[in-house]
Amino acid sequence: MANLLVDERDVKFTLFEQLKVQDLCQHARYAGWNEKVFGMLLSEARKFAEKELFPLNIEGDKEGARFDQGAVYSVPGTAAAYRKFVDNGWLTASEEEAHGGQGLPQVIKSAAHEMFFAANFPFMCYANLTHDAAKLIELFGTEEQKHLYIEKMYLGDWTGTMALTEPEAGSDVGNIGLKATRNVDGTYGLVGQKIFITNGDHDFADNIVHLVLARIEGDPPGTKGLSIFIAPKVRVNADRTLGAANDVRCIGLEHKMGIKGSPTATMSFGEKGECVGYLLGQERDGIKIMFHMMNASRLAVGMWGQGICSVSYQHALKYALERKQGQSIENPDPATQVAIIEHPEIRRTLMLMKAHIEGMRGMLYFCGYAMDQVAIAGSDEDKRKWQSLVDLLIPICKAYPTEKGVEFASHAIQIYGGYGYTKDYPVEQFLRDSKVACIFEGTTGIQAIDFALRKVRMQKGEVFACFLRDMDRMVEQAAALPGWEKYTAQMQRTKTALGELPAHLALGAAEKGAHYPFLKATPFLDAFGDVVVAWFLIWSAVVAEEKLEALFQKKKLEDQESRLAFVRTNADAAFLDGKIQSARFFIANILPITDGKIAALQWGDVSALVAAEKSF
Amino acid sequence: MANLLVDERDVKFTLFEQLKVQDLCQHARYAGWNEKVFGMLLSEARKFAEKELFPLNIEGDKEGARFDQGAVYSVPGTAAAYRKFVDNGWLTASEEEAHGGQGLPQVIKSAAHEMFFAANFPFMCYANLTHDAAKLIELFGTEEQKHLYIEKMYLGDWTGTMALTEPEAGSDVGNIGLKATRNVDGTYGLVGQKIFITNGDHDFADNIVHLVLARIEGDPPGTKGLSIFIAPKVRVNADRTLGAANDVRCIGLEHKMGIKGSPTATMSFGEKGECVGYLLGQERDGIKIMFHMMNASRLAVGMWGQGICSVSYQHALKYALERKQGQSIENPDPATQVAIIEHPEIRRTLMLMKAHIEGMRGMLYFCGYAMDQVAIAGSDEDKRKWQSLVDLLIPICKAYPTEKGVEFASHAIQIYGGYGYTKDYPVEQFLRDSKVACIFEGTTGIQAIDFALRKVRMQKGEVFACFLRDMDRMVEQAAALPGWEKYTAQMQRTKTALGELPAHLALGAAEKGAHYPFLKATPFLDAFGDVVVAWFLIWSAVVAEEKLEALFQKKKLEDQESRLAFVRTNADAAFLDGKIQSARFFIANILPITDGKIAALQWGDVSALVAAEKSF
Repeated sequence: MANLLVDERDVKFTLFEQLKVQDLCQHARYAGWNEKVFGMLLSEARKFAEKELFPLNIEGDKEGARFDQGAVYSVPGTAAAYRKFVDNGWLTASEEEAHGGQGLPQVIKSAAHEMFFAANFPFMCYANLTHDAAKLIELFGTEEQKHLYIEKMYLGDWTGTMALTEPEAGSDVGNIGLKATRNVDGTYGLVGQKIFITNGDHDFADNIVHLVLARIEGDPPGTKGLSIFIAPKVRVNADRTLGAANDVRCIGLEHKMGIKGSPTATMSFGEKGECVGYLLGQERDGIKIMFHMMNASRLAVGMWGQGICSVSYQHALKYALERKQGQSIENPDPATQVAIIEHPEIRRTLMLMKAHIEGMRGMLYFCGYAMDQVAIAGSDEDKRKWQSLVDLLIPICKAYPTEKGVEFASHAIQIYGGYGYTKDYPVEQFLRDSKVACIFEGTTGIQAIDFALRKVRMQKGEVFACFLRDMDRMVEQAAALPGWEKYTAQMQRTKTALGELPAHLALGAAEKGAHYPFLKATPFLDAFGDVVVAWFLIWSAVVAEEKLEALFQKKKLEDQESRLAFVRTNADAAFLDGKIQSARFFIANILPITDGKIAALQWGDVSALVAAEKSF
Repeated sequence: MANLLVDERDVKFTLFEQLKVQDLCQHARYAGWNEKVFGMLLSEARKFAEKELFPLNIEGDKEGARFDQGAVYSVPGTAAAYRKFVDNGWLTASEEEAHGGQGLPQVIKSAAHEMFFAANFPFMCYANLTHDAAKLIELFGTEEQKHLYIEKMYLGDWTGTMALTEPEAGSDVGNIGLKATRNVDGTYGLVGQKIFITNGDHDFADNIVHLVLARIEGDPPGTKGLSIFIAPKVRVNADRTLGAANDVRCIGLEHKMGIKGSPTATMSFGEKGECVGYLLGQERDGIKIMFHMMNASRLAVGMWGQGICSVSYQHALKYALERKQGQSIENPDPATQVAIIEHPEIRRTLMLMKAHIEGMRGMLYFCGYAMDQVAIAGSDEDKRKWQSLVDLLIPICKAYPTEKGVEFASHAIQIYGGYGYTKDYPVEQFLRDSKVACIFEGTTGIQAIDFALRKVRMQKGEVFACFLRDMDRMVEQAAALPGWEKYTAQMQRTKTALGELPAHLALGAAEKGAHYPFLKATPFLDAFGDVVVAWFLIWSAVVAEEKLEALFQKKKLEDQESRLAFVRTNADAAFLDGKIQSARFFIANILPITDGKIAALQWGDVSALVAAEKSF
């Protein structure tokens, strides 16, 4: 444990010892980088997260962003922190240098994001949405659009939003009704309302660039009829100075359970008939363009789930080490209280969190790493291969850590006991904040449908099957280590059962109807997540076993007893042994339950569909 | 679905068709009652809960109880609602008529409490604590103490509290340090602070009677050295008029995540050396006396967990029936949105909630019913038998529904989508409120230790084994019904595996050390909960199958198709069929996972204990 946000030692282990992402530097695109510089950057990121962002988040929860007489006020301190964040290069961390970025690999940005998100997700929404909106303009905008908007956004002067949701179009994006009409000059008039617009309005940027999904009059219903428009809060002159207001107005903010530092706005476009929208890309390409950022956005939200898990764990751990309560089991003495980490129930809960967090960290970083591989792939085949891996993993990277976020924030409160339920400690905020991550950027249910009905079926199921097969190499390596047979046998058993689910779902669809795979999608995704996390844990354990053995050799520790004593006192040995214990804990305590989840799926029960609506 | 709190139809089914609690009326003690009157009372309770208590709860969450310049202000409307509650006889519902009570069976009070707790737990804390404090005085007080306090409390003029917790004594009750010194007149001087005192102070009663756990100077450390004292806020004259203030002061209120309507106070006793405490019972009998209310208090908190589950489900169900979003799977049409209950993922989640809620309802009511059996038992043997059943069930009745409360409130938010995360709907409040139920009256971990290390071992394990054996009768009845073999076989498989766990834990303790059963206690309790809930669901399905068949016969419906059509349109048939679907859903979707939990337990993993403290 190094700090209260993220275990920096494990971040670096996962990046440089497990995934070996520094190998990316062999490629021309990342030739300027190396492990040492990555490490220094991440340490800086951690310090910034800890000293600036985290206190701002705790403060921001108290009152939150405010709406007053038509104006939105961000949490005091946001502007200064945003300026620092941009000036430190984090907004454009993984943009190419040619576009004014730092040219960092996505995986390093992801690792930094874990720290930033753990510290302050509401703040990071400003950065993420601005980045994503600018990126879409970069990819699909005309030269003029690029000239007008991108630089100001990447420099932190203007922010951006993604304006999708409407009252009747949440998960059902295709129902969007905001109306666009063609003007004679090639622009469009926008009229309608959007809700739940993150950072829809605030007080610290000169302009806010909205990317608005709308339907041009006469275009067909459904997602196919949607186009995307640039609609700035203030119109922009050709020289990038600001012109007239663009008839975009914030009507109010949501009062939310959490992430209060992030203003969630209801936005009205064209109340006076004067909102000009500039088409991005082609007409009716709105969804295609918007979905271009989907993988990155979903990975980011998943990383926030991971951040919530991590910040919850680090806090609970610190508390468990300090808080004294109850007596020792071995030497009970009413006059002597022990630190609660000595109680098996507390230790079990901490280990449950630690194991998941480490495995999810591997999964999420690996997904970022695969994105980097897409970017540098030398052949179309390589590109396709890595891209399908990303596509397969995105739903689980989004859904699994966000669901665990709610669970682990709740565990953290439990470890704090009654104190955790009070506002004297931040853990109750973590729980309140966490829940929305399971909802936005596609609910867990939407991720599951994407996974079970689209991703698993890619290339006739070969991507999924191949991904599972590829796990074998690492599992076999683990199997060769002393004491691992029982664990790797369990992993193979679970993985095999999981591999049979696509066929089961297909058969179910044929025999029981089209609803069947939809009914089983979420449990399937959940079981898949367990197996993926187990794989990354086994992988890290194989690395840790080797390094720990080398450490023992170096210290000339031969017998079991002196090795155990060493692990108890030496930080590095304790860390490496902790990786091994995480993997063992997860396999022994979670995978048998995963077997149960798969068995439940295989049962083929349809009672939830059979039950009449009146029966509920 | 009848209302937004609790399914009254299922409440009555569970009481009168499944458990047949009206049979209690054959006993002299309950001779004045019958099913019809019980039913009318419960309908009244539901209306009161719906119309008075629930709106007060939603309002109470906004500002909550306030502390201002030394005084505590309850939520406006509390005083009037409390008066009505008392006048309607609910405070003393299950007290004997001789003591001014209504003489209702505990199980009927429990069912009413489910409704009241679903509506407004913070409000109900006033009632519960007053009742429990008065009850302890009734059971252990001197004639003078009874004369002075009970009537005023039962009449609703004074309220009561239980003052246990101190900063260093939460779960570790034995560490209580509040000091009592003997006065020459036989009273005691109390000096010290208590924290987390529910309703420690407020503005709507003439007096507040605190029951304070304290240690008399010179008494030994640990729970054995604790005594319990009556310490009223205002001293009481012999004629029950109020005398001088008793040097009891509220220092402040906690700012909590939820249950904001309930003032959680830090209380200072004897700051000026003038707090008089009156010993209740004998010196050093404090814990014994306090624990006398423990079963009732824990059942009440479990019932609140149930209430949270129920109010979350009823809201989510209503929303799912009304909210339109997305297209039909069978007939997709972008122009037509369907109610979200048509989406399999929503239906699965609702069924998951419904099945658990119905099974837990059976479990909780049964526990109340067993308490009634203790009260009327004709022989010592009967009394012992029922009492051991209560003792066995209390930990699961407390822990399981409260854990599900957090989970299901979160599911309700998920069904509401982004709206559920806003304060425009009450579901986010349900989640915030729910969490503390897993903490107070003994955390889930404490319940698990009580279960696995004490209750399971009662009478050399015979109570536990016998309880599992007793399930067989109902399971065998189900097995004889067409289409049930697979379900009952699953139940028997899981139950058998569960039955082997006590031996496994004993062996683990012998081989791996005393920590072992503590490490496995919570997963064991959780698996036990699944099996108990499954049993109550099977039981209710057996009853429902018979009644549904009778209904079909009565309507002369022979073929499957006309029966299905009838179920879809007739409320009673839909309800009964829904009970059958609940049981099937639970067995098919949950019990295989329970098998996994048990297999994980049987693995015997101790990695969480093995891992060095530095490894975390």
